This record gives sequence, structure tokens and C-alpha cells, in this order.
Amino acid sequence: MRQGFRSLAEFSDILQGLPAPDAAARVAASERDAQLTKPPGSLGRLEELAAWYCGWRGDPRAEIAAPQTIVFAGNHGVTAQGVSAFPPEVTAQMVANFQAGGAAVNQLARTVGARMDVLALRLEQPTTDITQGPAMSEAELVEALLAGWQAVDSKADLLVVGEMGIGNTTSAAAIALALFGGTAQEWTGRGTGVDGDALRHKAEVVARAVEVNKQCKNNGMEVLRCLGGRELAAMAGAMVRARVLRIPLILDGFICGAAAACLEAAQPGALDHTVAGHLSAEVAHPKLLEKLGKEPILSLGMRLGEGSGGTLAVAILKAALACHSGMASFAEAGVSDG
Amino acid sequence: MRQGFRSLAEFSDILQGLPAPDAAARVAASERDAQLTKPPGSLGRLEELAAWYCGWRGDPRAEIAAPQTIVFAGNHGVTAQGVSAFPPEVTAQMVANFQAGGAAVNQLARTVGARMDVLALRLEQPTTDITQGPAMSEAELVEALLAGWQAVDSKADLLVVGEMGIGNTTSAAAIALALFGGTAQEWTGRGTGVDGDALRHKAEVVARAVEVNKQCKNNGMEVLRCLGGRELAAMAGAMVRARVLRIPLILDGFICGAAAACLEAAQPGALDHTVAGHLSAEVAHPKLLEKLGKEPILSLGMRLGEGSGGTLAVAILKAALACHSGMASFAEAGVSDG
Repeated sequence: MRQGFRSLAEFSDILQGLPAPDAAARVAASERDAQLTKPPGSLGRLEELAAWYCGWRGDPRAEIAAPQTIVFAGNHGVTAQGVSAFPPEVTAQMVANFQAGGAAVNQLARTVGARMDVLALRLEQPTTDITQGPAMSEAELVEALLAGWQAVDSKADLLVVGEMGIGNTTSAAAIALALFGGTAQEWTGRGTGVDGDALRHKAEVVARAVEVNKQCKNNGMEVLRCLGGRELAAMAGAMVRARVLRIPLILDGFICGAAAACLEAAQPGALDHTVAGHLSAEVAHPKLLEKLGKEPILSLGMRLGEGSGGTLAVAILKAALACHSGMASFAEAGVSDG
Repeated sequence: MRQGFRSLAEFSDILQGLPAPDAAARVAASERDAQLTKPPGSLGRLEELAAWYCGWRGDPRAEIAAPQTIVFAGNHGVTAQGVSAFPPEVTAQMVANFQAGGAAVNQLARTVGARMDVLALRLEQPTTDITQGPAMSEAELVEALLAGWQAVDSKADLLVVGEMGIGNTTSAAAIALALFGGTAQEWTGRGTGVDGDALRHKAEVVARAVEVNKQCKNNGMEVLRCLGGRELAAMAGAMVRARVLRIPLILDGFICGAAAACLEAAQPGALDHTVAGHLSAEVAHPKLLEKLGKEPILSLGMRLGEGSGGTLAVAILKAALACHSGMASFAEAGVSDG
């Protein structure tokens, strides 16, 4: 198994050789499901999630015992354009809050029994303002991808990746616009809470960033380098490492989805080991999930980022596998099967 | 505090004197929420659930430590009309499965950390076939209500009530038709899995049951007695006991909702201490929740009953309160608040 990569070319090689799920384990999981003490189909989405998970783990009776949430943090030069309701120093302050256990995602990780890791990526060195040029050099992109790759616990059996980075909904909107077209207005949302004139200004910044970096269009990894940020690239690196390790992954909200979309653009099918944890209240998230072909598990109007919605969805996945692998069959329980 | 009741009149007295939430605790909870390290509103529905829960518990920083799921089981004379895909002996077989820990709800209760209790209600004595007359006498109704009342653990801090009873979606559809009008077809669903001609026949049985018992219309407790069943009445009794103890309650699916609707008809506001745990795939559940004014927390296409969807939603409530009560404030964490 590949231990890492030293260049974008090596990363692209990995992307082209991603493993597939274990079809036999998935079939065996569905056969088991049909024997459990419930009417067929009555656990709805939980049944589908269990079969999908068992396929990726190669185990028809898998359970989830070691979920991991990783929060990546990065700073964005585009904050100089006045795109956020919060000042850029909040990124580092929130990293300290994650480390002290005071943020929402800490409480969520504890509730669902997930290990939580925080990785701050050169916060003292924001990416280039994307209205002025590419966010990162190729070397910076590779460094961030590798940081994500290395942050994954190889013993984890479910992964959530989240982010913190003042300015990063601007980056995510620019990525979506570059990959999927449409208008800057339709991809630009409130982020931490901008509205009215500030929101219109943010959309103009997004449009300008895509125009300035227009050479990157139609190339997923170039879009990530030119319009992304270190935390977005690290999420992408972690997603690919999870795939190589056959660790199923729960996507979080809009920013995580934008990072994922770069991978899917670079290698169709690269997200087959992922599910969408939730539908965020960030305005363009429904359209982004539609582009990715992902049906969200939860829809609770959350829009916090930091892996919060994805981590909450761990509870649903755990429950799905607990039912699938813990229930008695009709024969075991002596129940008539209709 | 009332220790119980000996008659329907005494139960109705309790219904008329239900306690309200603690408005001051709810306000204090909202004030706390505004200081937490997140943009205002960014936890969406979790914030609203936390404030609601704190109000009912009278504690602005409440957590959930002792949830309880109770599954009530009863048998229905209307199974003689051929309304279910499963034979009536499955009710008792599934009770044994619950007791042995092999059902879906056992796995879900374990996953969310809920105590689980099972109460079988005179399974050897099915209710009267509702196409022939009232399901229960007044004495039988009171006995079942009281069984539910007594099953609630007074130390619980969150309650889920669920049911098992072959034939009880027929009963629930008849209740909905009697309370809300419309046609038998629109309230009658697949239950454990009837379809085509069998589903049309089931709707005819529902229509006949409501016609035979038409004197009960517009009287919530009479609808419950005439068209319900022991497990539905027990769920209603447990709901009222939870209210008296100020234990917030998560409603499960269509059958649980039908039992709840009888209480709301008898005493508007009787369900203020409840939330809808999930939207079930049973066809009339969306309309029933609309009538009750409840927005479901989850929507995963589940249609199993036995408290499964409600128990899964415990994970969301726990997470909401963990965030609310465990997060640091901007001041505590030294984070700039925008």
C-alpha cells in the first residue's frame, strides 16, 4: 500500500488506482438483512447505509467502534477583501478552543464516541488572496494534501473531516463556480453570517477570484490549488487516504463538499466511499450535493462547519450497523416471518 | 403530585391541569446559547431543541443522562379481518425478542444509551374487532392508560414510547380518520407490508370501523377507547405521566402519533412537551404530523414502529444538549465574537 506521495503527479497516480468496495461482502450483508426480525425495508435508509458500509469494510457483519473526526484549520488571504463577519484571528482562537474541548464539535465527538484530532496548517501564513492569483503553489498544495493524508488514523473505521478557516466559504463558492458554472450569486452564501450588501460584495469577490484564476477550470486539482485553501486540500488528502485504507467517510457541509468535488472532478467515483452527513443551511449546499449525487442523512439547518454535521451523523451510521449486526434473525428469535 | 387515577374522569382531570414549561429557564437557555463559540443560529434545529428541553426541565444548562424507551405491546381483534402481512402471534414472539435483546429497538437503545423496558398488555386477550364495536370497555381503557402511566421511570430525563401490535396500523388509521376526517384511503398505509388488493381491503376495514364506532367522533378519549388498542392507550398514559413529571418525550411514528392525537384532541396543548422523532415511511405520517404541528427531527424512511425512530432521535437530542451545556462561551475561550 502507498505510504504517501512526493508530488502532485504521484497523488494523481493514487487517484487513478483507488480501490473498489467488496461486492461479495455487500451481497452477504444484504442477505443477512433479509433474515432480521423486521419487515423487509422497514429500517429504510439505515439498511442501505449498513450494506454500503459492510461493502467498504469487506465484512458482512461490521460494526463501528473507532470513528475519527479530524478538523483542519487554515487561513485565507481573501479575508483582506472583507468577506467574513468574523476577523481572521478567529481561526487560531478556534483552534485553541478545539484543543481545549470547548467547541461544538468537541461535544458532538464525545457524544457519538469519536476520537477527535485538530490540525492547524501554517496559520501564520495565509494562502494568497484568490482575487490576486492562485491560492497556493503546487508545493504548498502537495504539503497540505499530505498533511491530510497523514492525519488519518489507520485503525479508524469511520472518518469525518471538517474545517475551520475564516474566509473559506468564499473559497468553497469559488471552487463550485469554477467546477459547475452558473453564477457567483447562486454559489455564494452567508457563511458565518454576512447579509445584504456584504453578501453581494462577497459574490463579487467570488466572481473575481474565478475570473482571475480562469486557467484552472475543468481540472479538479488545479481548482483546488488556485481557489482552495490548506484546510480544503488537507480534507481532500484525508478523503483519499480513507479510500486507500477502505475507511468509509462522512462528508460535512458546503466547504467539505467543495473539497470533495475537486476530487470527483479529478477522478470520477473518487467519492464512492463517502456519504453526505447532513444538509447544511448554507444556501448552495443542496445544489452541491445534487452535483455530487449525494442524499444527506440529516437535515437540521446546521451551518457551523468544523465537522459538526458529519460528526453528528456518526450516530446514525453507528445505529445502522448496530441494528444490522446485532439483531436476531427470524430463525434465531423464533418469530414467524409473514 | 397525582400518583395515578382510578377512572377516566380522574384521568381527564389530570389532562386539564397539565403543567407548563419553565419560561425563565427557557429564556436563560437562549441567553446562554447566544454566548457560545459559534455564529448565532449556526447549530440550527439543535439550538431550538436545547432551549425547548431546558424549559421543560427547568434547567438552563440541562444535559440528558437517563433516557428511557418503553415498548408497549397489545393484540387486536381486527386482525380477524386480514389486515396484516404477519399473523397475530408475531406480537408475542416479538415481545420475547425484545426481552432477549434481539430486535432493532434493543440495538438502538444500546447505541444511544437508553434504558429499555417492554410491557406486554394482556396479549392473550385481544381487543374487540373494531369493525364489530368499540375496541375496549372504559375499564379496559383505564387499565391500559394506567399501565402506561406506571411504566415511566420517574428518574428518566427523556422518554420514548413505542409499540408492537399486529394490526395496529389499522387502528391508528381509524383513529386519524375519526379525528381529522378525509377518506379511509388517505389514512391507510402499508403497515408491515400489505399492498394492492390487500391495501384496498385494509382501507375498507378502516372505513367500516369508523362507521361502526361513529358515536366516538370529536371526543379524543372515546376515539382512543373505541378505535385504539391497549398499547396505544398505554402510550397515551405514559405521555401524560411524562408531562406531569416534566420529562420531555420523543414521539415515534404513525401509531404513536395516532395515540398522541387522541390526547391533543382531548386537551389542546397536551403534546407541548413532545417532539416528533422522525418522519416514517407510513404513507399518512406526514399529514398526521402536520395536524399535530410537529416537524420531524429525522427522515430516514423508517417504518418499523417499536419506538425505533424515536429512540434513534435520542442521539440528536443528546447531542443538542451536549453542545448547549458543554460548549465554551466567547469570553471563556477568548474567541472574538465578530
